[in-house]
Amino acid sequence: MLKHLCQLVTGRSLYCCQRSHSRINKNILRKKELDLLKQNRTNFEKELRTLELGLMEDIEKLLAPLRLSVKEQGDAVRTLKESRAPTLDVQKAVAELKVRKKKLQDRENELVAKEDFPRAKMEDTLKRRFVYGQSFEIYGGVSGLFDFGPVGCMLKNNVIAEWRQHFILAEQMLEIDCTMLTPENVLKASGHVERFADLMVKDEKTGACFRADHLLEAHLEKLLQDKKFPEEKKMRCREVMKQIETYGKEELTKLMREFEVVSPLTKNPISDPMEFNLMFQTFIGPGHGMPGYLRPETAQGIFLNFKRLLEFNQGRLPFAGVQIGTAFRNEISPRSGLIRVREFQLGEIEHFVDPQNKKHVKFSSVSDLKIPLYTAQAQLNGEPPKFTSLKEAVEGGLISSETLGYFLGRIYLFCLKIGINPTRFRFRQHMDNEMAHYACDCWDAECKTSYGWVECVGCADRSCFDLHCHARATKVNLAAERQLAQPKEVEVVKLVCNKQAIGKAFKAKSKAIQEHLGSLGETEIESLESELATNSKYACEVDGATFDILPGMLSIKRSKKTVQVEEIVPSVIEPSFGFGRLLYSTLEHNFKIRAADEQRTFFSLPVNIAPYKCSLLPLSNKSEFDPFINKLSSTLTKLGVSHKVDTSSGSIGKRYARTDEIAVPYGITVDFDTVKIEPHSATLRERDTLVQIRVDVEELPLLVGKLVSGEVTWDEAMKTYPIFEDQINK
Amino acid sequence: MLKHLCQLVTGRSLYCCQRSHSRINKNILRKKELDLLKQNRTNFEKELRTLELGLMEDIEKLLAPLRLSVKEQGDAVRTLKESRAPTLDVQKAVAELKVRKKKLQDRENELVAKEDFPRAKMEDTLKRRFVYGQSFEIYGGVSGLFDFGPVGCMLKNNVIAEWRQHFILAEQMLEIDCTMLTPENVLKASGHVERFADLMVKDEKTGACFRADHLLEAHLEKLLQDKKFPEEKKMRCREVMKQIETYGKEELTKLMREFEVVSPLTKNPISDPMEFNLMFQTFIGPGHGMPGYLRPETAQGIFLNFKRLLEFNQGRLPFAGVQIGTAFRNEISPRSGLIRVREFQLGEIEHFVDPQNKKHVKFSSVSDLKIPLYTAQAQLNGEPPKFTSLKEAVEGGLISSETLGYFLGRIYLFCLKIGINPTRFRFRQHMDNEMAHYACDCWDAECKTSYGWVECVGCADRSCFDLHCHARATKVNLAAERQLAQPKEVEVVKLVCNKQAIGKAFKAKSKAIQEHLGSLGETEIESLESELATNSKYACEVDGATFDILPGMLSIKRSKKTVQVEEIVPSVIEPSFGFGRLLYSTLEHNFKIRAADEQRTFFSLPVNIAPYKCSLLPLSNKSEFDPFINKLSSTLTKLGVSHKVDTSSGSIGKRYARTDEIAVPYGITVDFDTVKIEPHSATLRERDTLVQIRVDVEELPLLVGKLVSGEVTWDEAMKTYPIFEDQINK
Repeated sequence: MLKHLCQLVTGRSLYCCQRSHSRINKNILRKKELDLLKQNRTNFEKELRTLELGLMEDIEKLLAPLRLSVKEQGDAVRTLKESRAPTLDVQKAVAELKVRKKKLQDRENELVAKEDFPRAKMEDTLKRRFVYGQSFEIYGGVSGLFDFGPVGCMLKNNVIAEWRQHFILAEQMLEIDCTMLTPENVLKASGHVERFADLMVKDEKTGACFRADHLLEAHLEKLLQDKKFPEEKKMRCREVMKQIETYGKEELTKLMREFEVVSPLTKNPISDPMEFNLMFQTFIGPGHGMPGYLRPETAQGIFLNFKRLLEFNQGRLPFAGVQIGTAFRNEISPRSGLIRVREFQLGEIEHFVDPQNKKHVKFSSVSDLKIPLYTAQAQLNGEPPKFTSLKEAVEGGLISSETLGYFLGRIYLFCLKIGINPTRFRFRQHMDNEMAHYACDCWDAECKTSYGWVECVGCADRSCFDLHCHARATKVNLAAERQLAQPKEVEVVKLVCNKQAIGKAFKAKSKAIQEHLGSLGETEIESLESELATNSKYACEVDGATFDILPGMLSIKRSKKTVQVEEIVPSVIEPSFGFGRLLYSTLEHNFKIRAADEQRTFFSLPVNIAPYKCSLLPLSNKSEFDPFINKLSSTLTKLGVSHKVDTSSGSIGKRYARTDEIAVPYGITVDFDTVKIEPHSATLRERDTLVQIRVDVEELPLLVGKLVSGEVTWDEAMKTYPIFEDQINK
Repeated sequence: MLKHLCQLVTGRSLYCCQRSHSRINKNILRKKELDLLKQNRTNFEKELRTLELGLMEDIEKLLAPLRLSVKEQGDAVRTLKESRAPTLDVQKAVAELKVRKKKLQDRENELVAKEDFPRAKMEDTLKRRFVYGQSFEIYGGVSGLFDFGPVGCMLKNNVIAEWRQHFILAEQMLEIDCTMLTPENVLKASGHVERFADLMVKDEKTGACFRADHLLEAHLEKLLQDKKFPEEKKMRCREVMKQIETYGKEELTKLMREFEVVSPLTKNPISDPMEFNLMFQTFIGPGHGMPGYLRPETAQGIFLNFKRLLEFNQGRLPFAGVQIGTAFRNEISPRSGLIRVREFQLGEIEHFVDPQNKKHVKFSSVSDLKIPLYTAQAQLNGEPPKFTSLKEAVEGGLISSETLGYFLGRIYLFCLKIGINPTRFRFRQHMDNEMAHYACDCWDAECKTSYGWVECVGCADRSCFDLHCHARATKVNLAAERQLAQPKEVEVVKLVCNKQAIGKAFKAKSKAIQEHLGSLGETEIESLESELATNSKYACEVDGATFDILPGMLSIKRSKKTVQVEEIVPSVIEPSFGFGRLLYSTLEHNFKIRAADEQRTFFSLPVNIAPYKCSLLPLSNKSEFDPFINKLSSTLTKLGVSHKVDTSSGSIGKRYARTDEIAVPYGITVDFDTVKIEPHSATLRERDTLVQIRVDVEELPLLVGKLVSGEVTWDEAMKTYPIFEDQINK
């Protein structure tokens, strides 16, 4: 519990936490009284909670007037709409609402940043220990591309392994692995070729490109700092900056002209904003024969394999296809470190379900869970997020279905498992105007970081949009079957060609025409029938030419058929995880600084995702320690406990600090007593409490194994084994 | 042991094996005498071994004259070289040697194919059960791209997990994860922009592209089938076809003209062969500012991070960087299924080592291992591969270093672990003429498949080539330090600018000139010094302009310094694994057909890589079985045993067959006796022996767990629990 609470605190409050923490620790060492320790810890927990809650209350007080202003305008819009006011008035009121919402959001992000998270310090640790770093650094680096080093790679692998366990194995989901190269026609059908774009402007002489909103923002910031720039115009600048993210192409064009924005490097004139597609283009095979893109998401691969997966699942619904893989986004000017990158790992689940039955068999397992919901209504009303039980949220219609609710619950539990701080987490519902047109309901799991609230997981009910798109583009039937309660009699309409008549009329083209007619669906046959009845002919388009089909050339037959099943196109519930953003958020949420020494930073990551579970340190490089280190290492390997032997020359304190920096939760030290005193024993140190115990070397690896698997808690271990007073350094 | 032997046999001999197998099985069921079973199995093993060896001997008999002909020509080349014969004669003899080697290789591949591997049958199974399938199939498919379905994905994940365990964890290698997008300058430095190409021709009117050698080969095949084509010219066709893979650009150009090759689709004339770079190009960021490629291998990312990794390893050599990831190759016309694809997973290890000390501390752990080596000498002499101990091979100089030998041993053990048949495996050493110019020694681990021998793993000593390339291109020092046995005195040369004189002469440019002069290395300073002495001036190029530096503008100072270390650029030993090819090979090596029914195919994959470890089958869909199935399933989940519940309506035999098709090694069936008789028990069936035992349901999950982890063998289980006579179907 103590460790869990340590994770709850970062930023400014951290220092306090560390101070009390260290005080507790001294108590332990001085009195060795575990009961007192427990007492102290309970106090400490309370203290922490008070601090954290106090912080939240402070922020809420400052936000209250802004929330109220949003609510008032939200009410005004509603009233206007209900009274069917003129469109122009409604639009004006909505625009004002947007401005107020933006103001609230900005203020909130500002207050978050004010919590003084020591980002530079954390980034220094991450860089120094090569958790991750900019790619191609020795070639000058490429922005938006990052390489994960040994520690970052293990961390990411552990997060993904936990995800696989939590979602794929627990739900028996069907994992697939598709290619990243994707031909253009697929992404045309999915809408990405047309819509996956940002607005960009170009330096008219050099051709250098800038993201339009970023450029305008930078330009306005510069104007605001200019002492000669008139104050009344500065007002206007501030107004515009508040809404910067909401402008469309036309508005940005006007604003660029109004503020006379030029290329920041050359002062050359710039082009008007234009759409820039964010997909990386390439060509598959030689020449320019088959244009393609690197996938912008992994979801499409699952939709394309829907039929194979349905068959694999023996035709039954519901089931989930899932994919873990890399996706790409050619950002115009990436910034914000790991939050906005050009190449990133996603984990996407496409849960296919009968649109008429979105219940979930395991909903009851999460229904009592309370999760922080920031509903569209709350956003409109300027209210803060609220912890609500899933049962209440689904029954009250806040969340559109049990299945969606089930996944929100599972997402929440997963985030806690990997160390996300629940007080810096919320589910924000999409407003009607930001939701994709096909989605019924959509929630973003957002984590509070020093960059503000960051979307880490999206969870949407995409209805049957994607399957429809690909079915239409390929003419392949992407439907499942639903067993009917009662067999049903249905009318079947069939078109029969008069081969002779068609052959005579259209000669060489007759085969193609017959094929076309044969491929018509039921509704198309019916419209043909009515056209024939009205005009006595039907204009049939084949291979770009039009042929007149006359009444005698075909006949339409109707018959009845009894069916046991009906076809349905499943709805899709899509939880979509950005692993890089989750990883970054949990790093921030678990970054700590020791009160005793500001230079000693550490990550209190949960054991399950910690890269190495244990370090093995000989007190010095004397060879007498070697047999113990080797024996312990090989036993830990056998038990599957990842560990790191550090035989470097630094002091033991320095080496502990180094293992803390890469989040190693347990450390074994072999010292002189290990060698001299029988039965041989060594010390075991825990990263967050800094407490050390002394344990027989024969028992030690198994104890670490049990601590790692959670079979034994550190609390229990401290009670079972003698606390070790460290003469040297912790 | 029996299972191991089952894996040794595929192809034609398979039928025999399965027949005797089934006979044994009947024996068990009839007599239930385990001693007899053991006796039978020993006989069976002998029978198998005889068959397999017999097959190899038959092939060797057929190959003997070809091997002899290679050896004779190899000797002739050597004699010519030793007697310093005219270059033209040597070239001619070498060309003839190549032809003979090609003949031998073709014949060998032909004989392998003659083993009648039922590839179509296997492909049918793989497709039907969606192990993998062509990508974008509903859009018509894209050749060279494949999607892995649930079973294939689990298989691949298991192979990669085994690899991570066998290499990364066992050796504490440093795993990193770099981006696939790579800027052009990096791949220019590595040589890929210039050299990573195939020859291609274009239809001169339509622009359609063809791989030059494939097109010529297809054209010649057509000519050979043409009855009107004169026999003497057919002889020439056959000659050319034999060497088709060895031709360069000029030779192919001549041959295309000689045989009047035209575009196969349109009969239009074709262009001369031209180089086509096999990397997928794209642009990073907006516009065409930064051209880049998708990485053609994962190795470069490790070289680029060398400095960070060296620092992570506290400056010490040797250490290994490793990366698992996707690489891309824009094949002109991919064929051969999973063997030649455009997007594939690699696992690459870059082991950095002191070039003067390539010993390996763990070499003794593999030195007695005998592995099948097909040395360059053996290839020259027309000899077959030979099982040689690593100790002998390294000491005898067949393998160039202990470290390279160590990795060959580890690669061999890994391949056996994932089910590669050791009689269909060899290490082929590169001949001098096929080895990259920088490599000292290179071995390919090749697997025999129905496509012939396929390179699945490459293992090369790349010397210090890659680090040198990137150091030269970036001017970043990519070196490590070696501790000297004795401190050494060295001369240090330093250039000191006369700031005043330079400032006066070059004004605004003086700063850039001083920076340039300051950046010169020791050898550059020396050549500047000699130029100044000779010409009384030195031509200094800065920002594209030339400035004359006169003697008074600088001075060169020499001093002595005592150093404890010297700089070295490490050598790199690179084992590089193609997971798709390994996966395909193990699928072929483990594909079996039941003797009793040719329609019943199965994969005898080792338990560690089998996708699901266990199936759970209720005898029918009666609800009385449900509590048992649910209990067993949840206990198996707790034990971490991946399993599949099959409650579909097929007969139990049909469902067993279905689990066999996806390589599930164990199957639990809950039947009427389970429900009726106390203590409740269920049957456990093993995939390869088809034997079933009856076990208490309380014990069953733990027993399966132990069978999966290898703690208990199936042999032991058969002795401990009663054999169950199946009344229904196996």
